[in-house]
Formats: sequence, structure tokens, C-alpha cells
Amino acid sequence: MPPILPRLIERKRDGGTLTPDEWRWVIDGYVRNDIPDYQMSALAMAVVFRGLAPEELTALTGAMLHSGAQLEFGTWSTPRVDKHSIGGVGDKTSLLLAPMLACAGVAVPMISGRGLGHTGGTLDKLEAIPGFRTGLSLDEAIAQVRRLGCVMLGQTPELVPADRKLYALRDVTGTVESIPLISASIMSKKLAEGLTGLVLDIKTGSGAFLTDPAQSLELARTMIGLGEASGCRTVGLLTAMDRPLGWACGNALETAEAIEGLRGGGPADLMAVTYALGVEMLLVSGITTDRAAADQQLRETITSGTALERFRAMVEAQGGDPDVADGPGVLPEAPIQAEFRAVRSGVIAAVEPRRIGHAVVALGGGRVRTTDRVDPAVGFVIPSKPGDRVSEGDLVATVHARDAGGAEIGLRALVEAIVIADKGTLTPLISHRVSASGVEVLA
Amino acid sequence: MPPILPRLIERKRDGGTLTPDEWRWVIDGYVRNDIPDYQMSALAMAVVFRGLAPEELTALTGAMLHSGAQLEFGTWSTPRVDKHSIGGVGDKTSLLLAPMLACAGVAVPMISGRGLGHTGGTLDKLEAIPGFRTGLSLDEAIAQVRRLGCVMLGQTPELVPADRKLYALRDVTGTVESIPLISASIMSKKLAEGLTGLVLDIKTGSGAFLTDPAQSLELARTMIGLGEASGCRTVGLLTAMDRPLGWACGNALETAEAIEGLRGGGPADLMAVTYALGVEMLLVSGITTDRAAADQQLRETITSGTALERFRAMVEAQGGDPDVADGPGVLPEAPIQAEFRAVRSGVIAAVEPRRIGHAVVALGGGRVRTTDRVDPAVGFVIPSKPGDRVSEGDLVATVHARDAGGAEIGLRALVEAIVIADKGTLTPLISHRVSASGVEVLA
Repeated sequence: MPPILPRLIERKRDGGTLTPDEWRWVIDGYVRNDIPDYQMSALAMAVVFRGLAPEELTALTGAMLHSGAQLEFGTWSTPRVDKHSIGGVGDKTSLLLAPMLACAGVAVPMISGRGLGHTGGTLDKLEAIPGFRTGLSLDEAIAQVRRLGCVMLGQTPELVPADRKLYALRDVTGTVESIPLISASIMSKKLAEGLTGLVLDIKTGSGAFLTDPAQSLELARTMIGLGEASGCRTVGLLTAMDRPLGWACGNALETAEAIEGLRGGGPADLMAVTYALGVEMLLVSGITTDRAAADQQLRETITSGTALERFRAMVEAQGGDPDVADGPGVLPEAPIQAEFRAVRSGVIAAVEPRRIGHAVVALGGGRVRTTDRVDPAVGFVIPSKPGDRVSEGDLVATVHARDAGGAEIGLRALVEAIVIADKGTLTPLISHRVSASGVEVLA
Repeated sequence: MPPILPRLIERKRDGGTLTPDEWRWVIDGYVRNDIPDYQMSALAMAVVFRGLAPEELTALTGAMLHSGAQLEFGTWSTPRVDKHSIGGVGDKTSLLLAPMLACAGVAVPMISGRGLGHTGGTLDKLEAIPGFRTGLSLDEAIAQVRRLGCVMLGQTPELVPADRKLYALRDVTGTVESIPLISASIMSKKLAEGLTGLVLDIKTGSGAFLTDPAQSLELARTMIGLGEASGCRTVGLLTAMDRPLGWACGNALETAEAIEGLRGGGPADLMAVTYALGVEMLLVSGITTDRAAADQQLRETITSGTALERFRAMVEAQGGDPDVADGPGVLPEAPIQAEFRAVRSGVIAAVEPRRIGHAVVALGGGRVRTTDRVDPAVGFVIPSKPGDRVSEGDLVATVHARDAGGAEIGLRALVEAIVIADKGTLTPLISHRVSASGVEVLA
């Protein structure tokens, strides 16, 4: 006899647990449209309040993962590792890491998302490159990974349909903010990439999806538990998102900055996070257990120029203009650049990433609705970091806008986002490392 | 700018409150199908966890009440009072009270429901009378109340459409068990009757909808607050539902017992609850403030035979066979009557009403789904009450069944429901009186 869904909803509501078989029945029924949205949203809200026991979360994630196709690599022995970041502003590490790791002998089958709300999305950054195609088929993606060692594509309809359907429902029913549901959503998609290892970049601070470090840690632990339970070695770093990462915020500007990083000239904070994540990716790949050697190997992919050439090859393979690797010339450029200068001498006390992220959206560079089109050229370049000393009149940031109105919006956002005071300090860039064996405080 | 529903859901989820305008916008939008079920069910689940502040509850109830038509009595000065019971097994007091109160000069426009789950419904009991029509229009109902002083009908499509839609949704999304949502549902329907007074019969004990007396009290207080806020004087009695009320359980059997009560021969417990509720109805009507006089007046409607004649007139007005008032002869009778006798000497320790109610359903006399048809003839007659002394072989109860299989089911249910032990006690029939001025412990 099949379960009676209202009884399952009531059980979860009252603090009980559903069996793994019941979770599979729920997800299968939901994907087949046997279970209506109105019961699923009530169940999701009950989960928001009651959470999920570990075995429930494993079953839910597994059921979502198996709701569709997966990237299948058969007997291919090359380790496959991805990096996933939870939110963030100015985070373009994916564009660097995919070619760098490919050069280090680790395959990176990277399925990314689009920007929504104040956070950017890797697909939008890649699509700033003229011709770049993110809508690959699974077969194209697998072939490219085997040939080049990396691919960067968007979610396909065959992959994890349960998550696509459930996420769209959660988005309009106030049921996004649940650590187990977020974990199941992310991990079902990552595990569908056929990974042997995964590194999580858990942003913390005012601009992060989760602003409370305790919640960030819980999310990291939950996702790591899910990854490890599926035979995918998973490690997380907690990285600062109380200021943007790097200097550039906005799609083409970020792509240009990532390429500059591949050419050896990226901002220090961007490169530090990139190397830290890259080292963890090499370690979970099992290729090496020597942290210093891993770091050295990754740096050589930059100094030798191999990572840049691998990026160029990937762009070309995906239909983009390979000349982008030679400099920002082929990327769209905003017609207006407006300078933002310090109104007083002092120390940068804050560069609010959430305010900057929302301003990118207001300039046309992000989305309020998933159907919005983005203007790749607009955004900000903010070389200033909290703790930096400035003198009155110093150039602190530049707005890249489509028109004078956009420049005005951008400058006003900077007035609110950038605080100059008598003192200011920079919080540590990478604060914790979380793995199956526990939490390591790094700073 | 209209509210953004996911933000409202999130606010309620996080323990905040919606404004009265926001609740009206939600209910109006839901009735107009602008708000989909999947958002409403998520909001309802958030309310299950977070409750409603008093001003939210008032606004929600008012918005539901105003979602449709109401019984309009214009300048008619006769007080209009109803009695509403929350669940229960064997409760046929409505059939007695409507004609009794009408004879005492109080109009009773009674809109009732059908049985669902283990509890019976007044409409099913009335429809055991051949020809009786519960599907009256609002105009028919108003005309009959003005002429006879009482009418007993079912919910009509024009009345409180928001509740009908919301209740159907709550029923399948695990969101029934919420004191504010239950209160808003009941009170919006009762206030749509154009009442000046209302008496609540809050059942408590193992067979009640709410088994925890503290919850029963909270429900009573919540509903009384809503009634009084709408200018409808409201009082509640907490009555025992750890055993069936009266002897008969099953539609025709209960109707026969109610008529026997109108003829002066009802079981003592049924009549005690009927008089207690009737006195409260007379008091909230404002016709009298003298409790003893009210009791006397009601008893005279029975001893004089006027209540029976008013019942007969109501049955006739609604298309039923008026001869039903002369005795059970015109009511359907089950072909098989099986006796249940005491297997040992001792004291009745329990007559589990929930088990009995479910057994009525199993015999065909109730519903599992709202679309099920009911067999009016089947049920139980159980003259035994907890605390009664019995000797081995005494007749304890009778099953009324359609066939031998039904008799078997009924006897098995009685074995489980009726416990004979060395001792047993009867809990007080009426334990508390709840009004706007507080809770009075009666026993």
C-alpha cells in the first residue's frame, strides 16, 4: 500500500521522520506530477521548521540525484573534482580553477548557475565572451572533459529534474532558507556530475547567503556528510564575504579579471582564495597528499602559461572567441566609466558586498527574475579593501555603466557601500577548513 | 504596490505578523485564484508552527466571512442563536436544540456539516429521515427561520467560499491541526449565519478532535474572542467525549434517539448536555438572564410536546416524512441486530468513542472520503456507561448491521472499545464553562 501523503506531512510537521522509501516515493511522485505542488510546499515548510534526520537527508538527496541523468564517465580513471561556491559577490574563482586543475591532471566537469539577486553566476560571466556557448549537451560535456580536462556548462533538462522543480517551488513559497533543503539541492546537482571529489567555498559575512558563521559551518558539515556518504570526498573552506572578492564586480569585468589572473596578474585576495581552493581540489582528487607540492603545482600552471592556454582551448571548444585569452579587448565594454573618489582621508572601514551586488543588478548586470536579460558590460572595479588607508581625492572605485543614469545609480551605491572612517580592519580571508574529520580554524 | 506573497510567507515563517490588510489581500487573492494553492499551503503550514496574533486572527476570520454571502435578517428583532459542537460520537443535541429554542422564542438558523472520520454529522442524521432536504437555498432558509424559528441546512456555495477552498486544501496538506485556523474556519461559517449569539460545545477526552483539555480550553477562548469581537455573544461548555453521548451511534439510530428525547424519553446524559447547552443559548440570546428560569422554560418545551411539534413542522417544511415524530417506524432499520454481552462480571471501565466512531464508518455509516455514501441504518446502541456495574451475560450493546460481515465487524469493535474491569469511574459530563470573562470550573 503506498503511503498517504497528508499523513507523511503531518508526521514531519510533528517532528517525526520519513523513511528513506517514503522520501523516494515523495520525490518520484513529485517529478511524475502525481504529487501536487500544494502538498510539496507544505511538506517543504514543515522541513524548514523540523529539519531532516541524517538518513532522511541522504535519502532525499539520493532520490533527487536519481530523478534524472548523470554525467557518466564509465571506467575512466582520471579523478573528477568540482568546486562549488555558496553565493558571493566578485567571485570569479571558477574561471581560473577549471583550467588550472585540468593542467594539474584533474578533470573538472563544472555545471554552474546564473546570477540571481545580489550574487553573480558563472554562466553569465562566461557568456560575456562573444560566442561562448554554455548550453552543451551531456554528451558534448563528457567528450570535452575527456579531451580538455575541463568544461563549464549550464544545468541541462535531463540533470536532477526534481531539484529544478522543487527549487522553483521553494523560491515562491518561503521555503528556501533550510540548511537540509539547500544541501540536498546543491549536492544532488554536484553528485550528478559524476565527481570523485568536491570542494565547497562557503562564503561568510554580510554579503553571503548565510550571514551567521554558525549556520555556514552547519551547512558545510551537512553537505560534507552528504558528499562523503556518496563516496565523493568533500571538503569546505569558509571564506570572507564581508567585502567583494577581487576588484571586479560585473560579468565582463570579472571575466577580464579572471583572465588577468590566469596571466599572472590577478588581485592578491582573488589569487589567494583561488590557490587555497585549488589545493583542496588537488588533495580531494587523491593525486597528491602533499599540500605544499599541490600549491607549487598550481602556481606553475599560471607561471608557465599552461592554464591560460587551457582556458583558451576551452573557450574555443565552446564556441567563444579564443582571443579573449590575450586581453579584455574582445569583451564588451561599458560606454561610461565614472570615478568614485574618497571624500575624506582615513581608512576604508567597509565595502558592503550586498550593496554592490544589488547595484550591479540595478545597472542591468544581474537579475531580479530568472527571465531577465543581463548587460555583461556594466559593473564596478573596486581596488579598495577594508583596512586600506586613503587620502581625500584618491580614486577608490570605478563605475562601468550603460548611460549617465546608470553611472548615477552606481555612484550612489558606492556612497552607501564604501565607508571611510578613522579605522578599519580586514577580516581573515579564509577562516575555517571543514572536512569529515572536523573543523580546523585557519585564522 | 501589492504585497509580495513569498515575503509574507517568510515573515510568518520567521515569527512575524501580517497586517489586517495583508490578510485580506491574501484571502481575496486566494478566492479569486490569483494566489495558487502551493503558496497558500506553505503559508498555512507556517501558521501551524507560528500561530496568529489576535489582530491577525480577527482579520483572517473577517476576510473569510466576507468572501461570500451571509444570512441577512435585516431589522428582524428576534435573537438568532446557534450551537456548534467540535467533533464527537453519538452527539445528536442539535436535533433537539433547534426546535426547543425555537419554541422558547429564539431563532436557530443552523448550518451543519457531514460526518467525516470517526465523528458523525448532523446532515447525515437528518437525511436518515425519508425525503428530508438539507440542500436549501439561503432565501428558503431565511424564510423558514422567520416562519418556524428554526432551520437545519447544509453549507451553500455562496457562504464563506474562502473557507471551503482553504479547508479542502488544509485537509490534504497536514495543516488542519491549528487552533487559529480551526477557529477562523468555524467562526467565519457561524458568523455568516447572521447570529446574535453562539454556544460552543467543546468535546474533550479520547474521542474528541482535541484530546488535550488545555488545547480544548485554548480553542474555546480563541473562538469566544472572535465571536465577541464580531458582536456575537459567545460562550463555550467543555463536555466529556471519553465515551459516546447518549446510547445511539449511527445516523438513523441517533435521529430516533433525538426524537425519543423530544418525546421526553432520551438518555440522561444526552438530555443533561442538551439542557445545559440550551440554557447557555437562551442566556446568550439575551431573552433571559435567569439560569433556573431558562432551564425550566426548556424543560417545558419537552413536557408540553411543543418542541416535538416544532420538529415535526420543520421536517415537513424541509420535505421529510412528518410521521418520523411519532416514532422510529419510518426510519430505515438495519436487517441484522447482534447482541454484545458481558464476558465477565465487573464494572465498565471504558467505552472508547473513537473506536466506536471508526466502527460506524466500517459498517458503512460514515465516510473516509467526502464523496462516500453513507448507510443510514447501521450503527450501535450502547446503553452502558463507564462506572456501570454488569454481570456476566448482561446485554451491554447492540450492533445494527447491513449483513453478517458487518455484525462481525461491529462485535469485534465492541470487544476492543468496551472494557470491563474491577473498577471504573465516569468523568464529569460538563467540566468547564468558558466565556469572555474567563473559565469557570463546573466539575
